[in-house]
Amino acid sequence: MLDRVPMLDGASDTAALMAEIGRNARAAGRPLALASPEAKTLALNAAADALIRNEAAILVANAADMRRAEESGLTSAAMDRLKLTPERIRATAVGVRTVAGLPDPVGKVTESWTRPNGLLIERARTPLGVIGVIYESRPNVTADAGALALKAGNPVVLRGGSDSTLSSAAIHASLLEGLRAANLPEAAIQLVPTPDRAAVGAMLAGLDGNLDVIVPRGGRSLVERVQTEARVPVFAHLEGLCHLYIDRSAKLGMAVEIAVNAKMRRTGICGAAETLLVDRAVADTHLVPVLEALHGAGCAIRATDEVRAFFPLATPATEEDWRTEYLEAIISVKLVDGVSGAIEHIEHYSSHHTEAIVAEDAAAAERFFREVDSAILLHNASTQFADGGEFGFGGEIGIATGRMHARGPVGVEELTSFKYRVRGTGQVRG
Amino acid sequence: MLDRVPMLDGASDTAALMAEIGRNARAAGRPLALASPEAKTLALNAAADALIRNEAAILVANAADMRRAEESGLTSAAMDRLKLTPERIRATAVGVRTVAGLPDPVGKVTESWTRPNGLLIERARTPLGVIGVIYESRPNVTADAGALALKAGNPVVLRGGSDSTLSSAAIHASLLEGLRAANLPEAAIQLVPTPDRAAVGAMLAGLDGNLDVIVPRGGRSLVERVQTEARVPVFAHLEGLCHLYIDRSAKLGMAVEIAVNAKMRRTGICGAAETLLVDRAVADTHLVPVLEALHGAGCAIRATDEVRAFFPLATPATEEDWRTEYLEAIISVKLVDGVSGAIEHIEHYSSHHTEAIVAEDAAAAERFFREVDSAILLHNASTQFADGGEFGFGGEIGIATGRMHARGPVGVEELTSFKYRVRGTGQVRG
Repeated sequence: MLDRVPMLDGASDTAALMAEIGRNARAAGRPLALASPEAKTLALNAAADALIRNEAAILVANAADMRRAEESGLTSAAMDRLKLTPERIRATAVGVRTVAGLPDPVGKVTESWTRPNGLLIERARTPLGVIGVIYESRPNVTADAGALALKAGNPVVLRGGSDSTLSSAAIHASLLEGLRAANLPEAAIQLVPTPDRAAVGAMLAGLDGNLDVIVPRGGRSLVERVQTEARVPVFAHLEGLCHLYIDRSAKLGMAVEIAVNAKMRRTGICGAAETLLVDRAVADTHLVPVLEALHGAGCAIRATDEVRAFFPLATPATEEDWRTEYLEAIISVKLVDGVSGAIEHIEHYSSHHTEAIVAEDAAAAERFFREVDSAILLHNASTQFADGGEFGFGGEIGIATGRMHARGPVGVEELTSFKYRVRGTGQVRG
Repeated sequence: MLDRVPMLDGASDTAALMAEIGRNARAAGRPLALASPEAKTLALNAAADALIRNEAAILVANAADMRRAEESGLTSAAMDRLKLTPERIRATAVGVRTVAGLPDPVGKVTESWTRPNGLLIERARTPLGVIGVIYESRPNVTADAGALALKAGNPVVLRGGSDSTLSSAAIHASLLEGLRAANLPEAAIQLVPTPDRAAVGAMLAGLDGNLDVIVPRGGRSLVERVQTEARVPVFAHLEGLCHLYIDRSAKLGMAVEIAVNAKMRRTGICGAAETLLVDRAVADTHLVPVLEALHGAGCAIRATDEVRAFFPLATPATEEDWRTEYLEAIISVKLVDGVSGAIEHIEHYSSHHTEAIVAEDAAAAERFFREVDSAILLHNASTQFADGGEFGFGGEIGIATGRMHARGPVGVEELTSFKYRVRGTGQVRG
């Protein structure tokens, strides 16, 4: 074994640490799965109390992270994501309390039926398994993801960004206070304590079989890496290339309002509209008012020549524009032949995250709902409703564009599996 | 590139063929997803008719497979699985007709709720994607899997065993007749036409992104290979190490009847009981009658010394016995301390497929249901009900012990994903 490359001590330490984290998470699975709804609610409410009580300590930790981030030249957008304020900490505590107040999903019977032989079959929710969350600068993900995983009875392994190490640790300390208050295992919510990137590799490899699903929260390069390298299932979306289609039957006022909201309310979120498709039949009436409103709100317009003939302030769109998630105040615009043309464009270019139709014609909306194959479809509502909180899930651990198990906002119920419970009176099979 | 290993022509042909099969399957996805319920029902009923009409041709093809299998020294069990008879063909046709008669899952709204802002959110089923099925000698899987995938609107790629090539092709021809009768794309149900094992490798690699899930149907070595090597999700169970627990509150007659049925009705299926756990509190009353009945039915008993003191015909059980799925007329037997002891043993040794409790004490049954983490749990019923048909699914493409997406019998509904449809009246997000 002369030519064997010796492992660095650091890497070896991280490997051992991650293996231990995985074993601890798995061991916490059964007590968590059997924890009473009351214990989980108590833990979450106590964690929310601790976040408020520990506000000063969390802010001190965050200030240290911010200083280091500034020195290392973090972008201002990333600095904003990293920054905690008393308001943000209180909002995080409210989020944890909201999750605490959700109905407990474990044991919930989602379907039941009786067979001709008298067997009563129930399908009941169970925890899903050990959840891994890999995130970047937002330290509040620590609390959001920890709370959702706990509510569904799942151990979670959190790996925050190296920029937010101290902030995440301070938030994690409050979660541990909650777990202790409810006598639940502290390994229910583990925060990876090392910035060593080998920790991420260990999670992608599945922690020796002790990690069941990974949720990446962050930019495209993180999600892409996780989707490519993970050896376990991933709940994620690579991008939200969302479309808004304005049908010939749309009310103009509604179309204007929804277009401005879908694009401009927040341009950096995955549910922001990136492409506007307008029915050619209403190019004369609807196109210009909608574009004027967008432009007036500060949005740059990239459009086909046909659209530019109506609205010369638009710059030319290239093929690349139809494939681009801007995440900025830019929108690509095109005329299409009714709902068929919209569906054709969307099925060709969409990332299958979220699409909306504005129409009074119910048949057009139903066709859009039926034929567009995206996680979230909206009729006469803004694409920016693509959010677990807005769906009533009390939060989300992410939004998935995969089709397996979870799709759309991933909330507490998507963090469960199920088992069949069959009640008989002595039946044997013939 | 001097040192590049040239590909064999055969391997290269198979690679090209499998890539084409994948592309064809993906292209069939949209027309299938949008196919009307009536078209799918028509296709399945026409396929069932064709199976009956083509009975003679199917039997001729099967006879040729059987001759070749006999020459190559196939085991008699495998020969039995390969063999088709007029009865088996008719039963296959009945199965296809049963699937035809199931409610169409696509578009079914499984949940809906209204938000405070008036948005109506629906969760509606969609097809799942391209399904791959890799199976061994049973040619009727061609029809069962093809029918279930089609009903759920999914293209399917079927790779049957090399022993059953001609039989599977003959059955597949009837399915194609059904697709043509309903004007559905023939690529909806593709049978891999080559016995080249590289075809399996291409499927495990995911057909260049054109395969979304794989279902292996066959022996342990096949399932193990698929679970280890597949780059796409797998619906499967490696083994069914199923337990039957007889509680102190069990009615003796019911316990005897369920024990004999759970073990002996068919010993080679995954829902057959392999380990019997009897409550120590009723060792004096229940143990011997149950073991006498099993022994009388031809079952060999392997047991702890404690059990052998009651029933000397039992041979000693070793540690290995608690981990063994016999799939034969053998059962391992042990006394446990009530439902706690049963749960402890099961959680340690089970493959988490199916477990049953016989008890009159409702609290014991509820505790068993709550604490045992297996796909199927039964109270006062035989483990042999672990079957999609017995669940009312009209068939099953397999039974899964994974926790992601599907668990237990995988029927038409488990072969769907879902999308959210949100109905508004002009809502924008604040």
